[in-house]
Amino acid sequence: MQSTPSVPDEFPTSDPSSYRSFVLDLLGIMAYGELSAFERLSSDARFSPALADRVILGGRAVAEFSHYELIAAQLESMEANVAETMRPFMAAVDAFHDRTRPADWYESIMKAYVLDAISGDFYRALARHLDPQTQRIVAEVQVSEDQSTVLMNRLKEALMDNPRLASRLALWGRRLVGEALTQAQRVGIERSFLAGLISPSGTPGPDPVGKLFADLTREHSRRMNLLGLTA
Amino acid sequence: MQSTPSVPDEFPTSDPSSYRSFVLDLLGIMAYGELSAFERLSSDARFSPALADRVILGGRAVAEFSHYELIAAQLESMEANVAETMRPFMAAVDAFHDRTRPADWYESIMKAYVLDAISGDFYRALARHLDPQTQRIVAEVQVSEDQSTVLMNRLKEALMDNPRLASRLALWGRRLVGEALTQAQRVGIERSFLAGLISPSGTPGPDPVGKLFADLTREHSRRMNLLGLTA
Repeated sequence: MQSTPSVPDEFPTSDPSSYRSFVLDLLGIMAYGELSAFERLSSDARFSPALADRVILGGRAVAEFSHYELIAAQLESMEANVAETMRPFMAAVDAFHDRTRPADWYESIMKAYVLDAISGDFYRALARHLDPQTQRIVAEVQVSEDQSTVLMNRLKEALMDNPRLASRLALWGRRLVGEALTQAQRVGIERSFLAGLISPSGTPGPDPVGKLFADLTREHSRRMNLLGLTA
Repeated sequence: MQSTPSVPDEFPTSDPSSYRSFVLDLLGIMAYGELSAFERLSSDARFSPALADRVILGGRAVAEFSHYELIAAQLESMEANVAETMRPFMAAVDAFHDRTRPADWYESIMKAYVLDAISGDFYRALARHLDPQTQRIVAEVQVSEDQSTVLMNRLKEALMDNPRLASRLALWGRRLVGEALTQAQRVGIERSFLAGLISPSGTPGPDPVGKLFADLTREHSRRMNLLGLTA
């Protein structure tokens, strides 16, 4: 396998080394995100209301670990040091998790449901102008429809006839998305990470970053509506 | 697949329903043991000294979850309710973990190393007189040699030139094995679980349960010696 993918025409710069560092940043934040999601979800699983629910969250955690392994293998094939590539993103991801500790199992599955979806949208947007191999990894790391449906159905079931839980989880969903977008923006600025959004012509349209965040928010609202919650 | 395996000749009783309940007990305690090991190990992973070490413990945790899934599938094929089958063993397994909370990552991998081995020996001994299908599940649930070697090498590396850690981990190993045997004995008595050790002729030899515990202890000492520790 090639150790550095060639710069696709659609990317704003043709410099191979800045392209490589952009790809490494994207894979690094994804890898650390998956590894820490695995650890957090599996720790939360123990506090599930029923044994069957522990298995739902555990299975989801295991899927995150296999995503981590997929990204790590790609980084190794690019001759990058996996730990070094993740390191710049540890503080931001850890801070995000510390600020969004689920109070119980319901908040925990809500967090999994909301975050897997929004981070998937975010990574896909960043990968839009990247080489096919990187795009393939980003696509594979997405949680499958089936898995999301399991969480969504379990959440719907819990919310049915429980307006108190519904209002708590609606609030929780807003907090999660707020913290996620704040961290995404911070990391994006620190690592010039959002450069990949700018179109190659140099005419990025009115405001590509603003547009991304608006898209993410809109998709999040749509998913909350699926649960019968107001975003 | 058959929903109840037929009673093998070597089993002390020929009554199918007591044989079934013995097999369900064995699979139930194994399933809950794997599920809770998964949750504990993956939670501990986060406190690893280095990113690469988090991945070692995470990978081990994921292996435990796949063992859980294997046993659950077997229980389902026997038309047993997985959660109900695990329930009688929850208190004992949880109590064991509460009494053996690792103080740090080293104690955590030591716990994985010690416990996977001793519980493997225990389950194998109980399965000795069981039907081939149950024996196959017990064999598949064993942690592979490779995985144990990874932990052992990582422990050896940590212990090298660190006599203080060596004496702490030697003590910890003794505590782990003591607690594990205590719980095994308690569960064995409560659930008449050790009946499977008695040979079919009804002449179990001098003391089959005592012999099992002596074997478990001897094997544990051998593994401690491999690490250069006194058991």
